Amino acid sequence: MAGRTARSERAAGTGEVLLAVAERLFAEHGVFAVSNRQISEAAGQGNNAAVGYHFGTKTDLLRAIVRRHAERIEALREEMLERTGDSASVRDWVAVLVRPGTQHLAELGSPTWYARFGAQLMTDPVLRELMVDETFGPTIRRTLEGLNRCLPELPLPVRLERADMARNLMVHMLAERERALAEGAHTARTSWHAYATGLIDALTGLWLAPVTTDG
Amino acid sequence: MAGRTARSERAAGTGEVLLAVAERLFAEHGVFAVSNRQISEAAGQGNNAAVGYHFGTKTDLLRAIVRRHAERIEALREEMLERTGDSASVRDWVAVLVRPGTQHLAELGSPTWYARFGAQLMTDPVLRELMVDETFGPTIRRTLEGLNRCLPELPLPVRLERADMARNLMVHMLAERERALAEGAHTARTSWHAYATGLIDALTGLWLAPVTTDG
Repeated sequence: MAGRTARSERAAGTGEVLLAVAERLFAEHGVFAVSNRQISEAAGQGNNAAVGYHFGTKTDLLRAIVRRHAERIEALREEMLERTGDSASVRDWVAVLVRPGTQHLAELGSPTWYARFGAQLMTDPVLRELMVDETFGPTIRRTLEGLNRCLPELPLPVRLERADMARNLMVHMLAERERALAEGAHTARTSWHAYATGLIDALTGLWLAPVTTDG
Repeated sequence: MAGRTARSERAAGTGEVLLAVAERLFAEHGVFAVSNRQISEAAGQGNNAAVGYHFGTKTDLLRAIVRRHAERIEALREEMLERTGDSASVRDWVAVLVRPGTQHLAELGSPTWYARFGAQLMTDPVLRELMVDETFGPTIRRTLEGLNRCLPELPLPVRLERADMARNLMVHMLAERERALAEGAHTARTSWHAYATGLIDALTGLWLAPVTTDG
């Protein structure tokens, strides 16, 4: 097995190995606790400057990790959008928001690290911008437009606010399940698909909730 | 003004000044990007080991910051619980979850840093435990019990899951508004009270949402 891993990692190329190792170390120890040098070492690179050579700065490395996942998630959402017609309900549109992310994590197989990694970026005052840039793509915009067509009576500021809530909920709840799986903790939902169903239920309720005007 | 600030900071004691400076630096630059030495310097301490002397390790410092806020929020929730009777609705209980945090931020006056600081802790793989320990107190437990009594038909795993969702939503949405205020960005909700109303609407919808059994 060790031999096979080593061969497949060689085949994947040093850049791919560095990306995978960096993502794991960042997820487990925190984005700021891990240095480029530690990543190069953990990836078995004799040259401790391997990360710098392949990716440039640490920010460039973070962006490369995000981009690899964001592209696949965009493609999955594009497929879902093609199957989602004008008669789609609020719940259907919420599913188009939620399922591509969980399906991607399911496809990666266990363990994954991207959800925990992404949640850290979204919470950092500086790295947040990078994460939003790379992940708030055209398919999310089209999905939110579809959702808005179903909720014409919802005031614009409340729409924007609920979209923020949905984003935060997805990012951090996916990270929580990934963490639970990594720690071998019991998870009530036995699959990413079932977990997504729980999120879709909740977010549908959130979006349909009556609006109170504050006195 | 500078003289008044310096006097009131002296009156507050070095420990208090260090706490306030640390919280601000952590919120603005990230918990891991800021060293104890930088905090001591920014607090105008000639002795660069002032943080270590007053608080011990960085973890002890983080805990001291959280505790100061958590105690006040617990007290505010205790007051709300005393006014919340057996006939309280889902929405009433959700308000008891949400309002103490926003009321505390409102009382602190602008700018605040605690919401951004707390959100970072909740997302860090290691510091999360500290934050949960210090903030998941007896008043939250009683509030969730009250909420559960209103929702007897909700399966236990879904209850726990929705409580997790509510926690994530509160932590990260409060941090987002605090960040927007700090950046001078436009905020649709003009007060913490109004912002809480939007969160209470959404979380009430989330908790009341029908549960789909996943095939």
